[in-house]
This record gives sequence, C-alpha cells and structure tokens, in this order.
Amino acid sequence: MAVYTQISDDQLRAFLADYEVGELQSFKGIAEGVQNTNFLVRTNQSPFILTLYEKLVDVEDLPFFLGLMEHLARHDISCPLPVHDKKGDVLKKLSGRPAVMVSFLDGYSVSRPSRQNCADLGTALASLHLAGKDFELSRPNALSLPGWQTLAGEIMGNISSAFWSLEGAKIDSSTIMDIISTELEHLQKNWPQELPTGIIHADLFPDNVFFLNERLSGLIDFYFACNDLLAYDLAICLNAWCFDKDGSYNSTRGRALLKGYQKIRPLQPNELTALPLLARGAALRFLLTRIYDWLNTPEDALVSRHDPREYIRKLRFHQKIKTVSEYGFEI
Amino acid sequence: MAVYTQISDDQLRAFLADYEVGELQSFKGIAEGVQNTNFLVRTNQSPFILTLYEKLVDVEDLPFFLGLMEHLARHDISCPLPVHDKKGDVLKKLSGRPAVMVSFLDGYSVSRPSRQNCADLGTALASLHLAGKDFELSRPNALSLPGWQTLAGEIMGNISSAFWSLEGAKIDSSTIMDIISTELEHLQKNWPQELPTGIIHADLFPDNVFFLNERLSGLIDFYFACNDLLAYDLAICLNAWCFDKDGSYNSTRGRALLKGYQKIRPLQPNELTALPLLARGAALRFLLTRIYDWLNTPEDALVSRHDPREYIRKLRFHQKIKTVSEYGFEI
Repeated sequence: MAVYTQISDDQLRAFLADYEVGELQSFKGIAEGVQNTNFLVRTNQSPFILTLYEKLVDVEDLPFFLGLMEHLARHDISCPLPVHDKKGDVLKKLSGRPAVMVSFLDGYSVSRPSRQNCADLGTALASLHLAGKDFELSRPNALSLPGWQTLAGEIMGNISSAFWSLEGAKIDSSTIMDIISTELEHLQKNWPQELPTGIIHADLFPDNVFFLNERLSGLIDFYFACNDLLAYDLAICLNAWCFDKDGSYNSTRGRALLKGYQKIRPLQPNELTALPLLARGAALRFLLTRIYDWLNTPEDALVSRHDPREYIRKLRFHQKIKTVSEYGFEI
Repeated sequence: MAVYTQISDDQLRAFLADYEVGELQSFKGIAEGVQNTNFLVRTNQSPFILTLYEKLVDVEDLPFFLGLMEHLARHDISCPLPVHDKKGDVLKKLSGRPAVMVSFLDGYSVSRPSRQNCADLGTALASLHLAGKDFELSRPNALSLPGWQTLAGEIMGNISSAFWSLEGAKIDSSTIMDIISTELEHLQKNWPQELPTGIIHADLFPDNVFFLNERLSGLIDFYFACNDLLAYDLAICLNAWCFDKDGSYNSTRGRALLKGYQKIRPLQPNELTALPLLARGAALRFLLTRIYDWLNTPEDALVSRHDPREYIRKLRFHQKIKTVSEYGFEI
C-alpha cells in the first residue's frame, strides 16, 4: 500500500530502453500490493504495472510466481502477463530491487460482492485450477499446518499485551490463544490427506479480483500461490467473499460460488465433505496472519491492518457446521 | 504521498454518475501530492485525477485554487482542468471529504533538470504570471515574512533535540536558530515593497512540472498559489532548479531559467536588483518548512521528509551574492 522505493525518470527510461514497449509517457507510484512497490507506467503503446520487489519477498520464489502468471495467461486466465525484454528476460533489476513489468488489467475490485460476482469468481477459480495442472514448477504452501504452528508460537510470545473486544464483549489474549491451540490440534488430527492437489492462488480476496461491466476481468497478486489442496482455495474464497459486513454468512453468495466452481470443475464427494474443515483451516490461517500483522505493524504506519476478530467469528461459524449442506449448498 | 482516505467502487460509481465522463474502467490510489489523497481514475472516455482533500487543506481556499486552475487552463497554461458535473459544480463530496476531478496530464517530473528544462520552466512561469493577471480572486501568501516569523517561533520551542551534520561538520540547534533569526531580521529590514505583484505558483519544484519528449507538458499542484511578488516565484525556482545535487549553484541552468522567463515577461530593473534578496527569502521559507516538517513527521511515516540542510547551504550561497550578475545572468 505504499511506494517504498522511489525511481527517477532517468532510471525508468534506461530500464524501458531494454524493452520494445514504446516511449515513456507518464508514471505514478500506486497503492497496490502490500509488500511491493508498484508503478503504473504508461508508454505511447500501452499501460503497464511495474513492480519492484521489496525485502519481504523471497527472490528465489519469483521464477515460480512469474512463470505461473505467464502459464495461466497463456491458458486464457485473465491475469497480469509478465513482459519480456529484448533479450527475453522477465526478471530485471531497477533501483537495486528485483523488478518486473506486467500487462495492465482493466477493471476494479468490488467492495460488496454480488451473487453474480461470486458465481464468476467460482468459475475463474476452477479455471485457474485446471489451467495450473500442467505448470511445471511447484512451491510448497508456507502457510499450511506446519506454518500455522510456527505462527501460533511466535504470536504466543507477543500477544500478552494485545486485547480486543469481540462482538461487544472483551476477549482477552488467553481466550484467543485457547481458541487457536484447540483448533490447531483439531485440524492436525483431521486435516484431509487424500484430496486433489494442484496450483492454488491462496489469497483470492476481493482486493485481488477485478470486475468490469459486471463481469470478472482479471485476477492479480499471485505472491501466495503454491501447491496445495484445490478445495482449500475454494474454502479461502468462501471465507473472503460469502460473509456480510455484519459477520453473518450469506448462503446465496456461497451457493453461487460453489455452483460457478462446479460448472468448470465438479468437486469430488470427499472434497465436498471436507469443505467445513478446510474452511476452518482457512479461517485459522487468516486469523493467525492478521494477529501477527496486527502485533508487528506500528499503529501509525500507513499500511492498513485488518481486524483479526473478523476471522475469530468466521472460525466459530465453521466450527458449528456439521455437514456441507448447512452452507446452503444443493448437493 | 499516500492514500489517506479509501473509496469503494460503489462510492466512486455513484460519484461519477453526476458527471458526463463515461463508465468507470479502473481506479488506483496514487502517491502524488503530500497533503491529499489522489486516485488515477480511468473511464472509457479519458483518464482523470480525483483528489480528496484531507484535513490539512483549508476548504475555504479551494474555490481560489480550483478557479485559478480553470482560469489558467483557459489561458493556455497546461495545468489540470477541474471537471464540472452535470449541474456545473466542481467542488463535490466523496467519502466525507471535499473532492474534485481534474483532467490528467501526460508527462513526468525530471530528477535532473537540463538547461532546456530550465528555459522551458522560465517561459511557463512567466506565462503563468501573465495569465494570472486578470484572475478575479486573490489569496494572501501565508508563507511570507509574517508566516516565517510564526514558523520560526514554533520551531524555536522544538528544535532543542534536533541535531544535524552540515557539510561534514556537525551543526547544533543554536547555530541553526542564529542563522534563522539573523536572516529574518535582515529580510524584515530590506524586503522590497515596490515590485510587481500578482498570482504566483509558490511551489514550482521539479516534482510539480511535467515534461514529455523533452518539452514542458504541464504544471501541477497549485495548493500554495497566492498573490505575492512575481519575481519571488522566480527566486523559488532558482533555488529549486538551479543547484546541482552536490549543492553547487549551476549558472548555466540559472541563465537559461532567467532567459526563458524574460522572453515572455522582461523583468523590471528593480526586480533584477532584488533577486538575491528574494532568493534568500525563498531559501529561508523552505528551510523553515523543512525543519518544521522534519520535527513534526514521525521517522517511520511513509511520507518522505526533505533534508533541511540543503536550504541552509542555499541560503548561505545567496547571502554572499552582491549583485545579480554573480548568478551568471547577462544583464
């Protein structure tokens, strides 16, 4: 959400000279992406997004992320397409940072997703899962069970001073740690092992999906993409797209999401059965990272922190689900 | 340099419906302007800049700033043109903030101005001064002598803990306060009273001037514009554009700036004579505001602070100038 690294016109023009993209016409630092610096660059040919990777990103992962975007774009998934320079290179350097130019996608994020938005999202997610099948690189999910365990440990040492009010009443840090450790234990015992795996986006929140004229126009921000259970990606979307602002689950949008997904890739019975558990895992994953970010982001930083409590509520909701039909799914 | 106020797609689409600007295609928060939130908004017709005014801006001044931009644009000065809505209004509300849409200007700021850039700047500045002549509103300069006095007083109370190294050697706060108070006294005794006045930009730093294909393509950020001595505006540009990164004065660029200016509006002899003094005033003005911002901006804020020491050096340079010919001007 910020421009961490500044670039000058001289630097940018020298950088663009390596490409066949036309002459620089304007460039603006934009507030997009949490961990990287992004510029909207316009040449007389086209607009582009220029990303400078800041220290938080592991440079060794970049070939996976960039290769994946290119692979998906070639398989008709609307996502940013990395631009090759005259030598054929994609990953370059600018102002001391790894840097990449990608195509600009029209459209914008919706703050209140509609039923149709969720149906389109489901379709796009299933298409992404199918398109990822023959992608040759792989990357383990750093934020799966073992990662959650590590995060929980780190939070445990720091949370003592944190104190939130939940649903009007106060919730203290020991209650939060109880919720987390009980849930972790449950997930470790029951996490499914036999479900179909593949490339997942792993962070497909409304921020990362663009719509234009009421239709999905693009998916962005592949920097959490990895190999994991495909249905877990759907469970992340269920959490991120199908709850109303007041915290209540919206079964109309949930049903639309699942229907849109199954139109392209019908879920196996064991994936459907596992959905409530996967949704608990997804809720715990975002609860943990939100608490971690809450504790580690200075209050006056211009990066907006997301309220962790939202995911305590979602976790509790999924804990009460006995069968997938309670989500309102017609199965 | 930051997005202080977020807007949703719903809010923006409702806002745009008041205008005849086409359908929303994308919007991004951009890192432009220090005090306001800016979005680059694209419709299927055109790109625009949408500005939300944050608390630091005095809303009562907005009709002056917006009227001035419109007046100047109508007089062929390339600057952002405020867009009228269907009712004819320019100043609107969005997300609880005063909001204005202006036209988007192609081009970008240069970090190392060339001789030709300075010549073009001089020409544009003189054209702005002439075009401002028949603008019907006026606004006193809050950052002239009385304003400097107030700022110096506020700094005086806070500076004790600040400590900078200047030109390798350390400079302590009492030395800085001595420089400021001696200079203030000198300027108060000698500040010219009889020079031509009019509308000045008052902040025409390289950040606020766009070039495209080596020619000046636009002037932006009129939020310091006011009525004051026209030659003082030139003195601000002399400080901002005609020193090298190592702190040395560059007479080639200085000469180009003056020549470009005089091509459009020849300076009177008393304006030329006053230039060294006006340049001292301009250097003091930015020294004071930079110290003030330095003391009042948290170190970890994502707003970049400018080093005040640059303007101590410039002030000392101008203090040694006896006649305007020492700037390298042919007069």
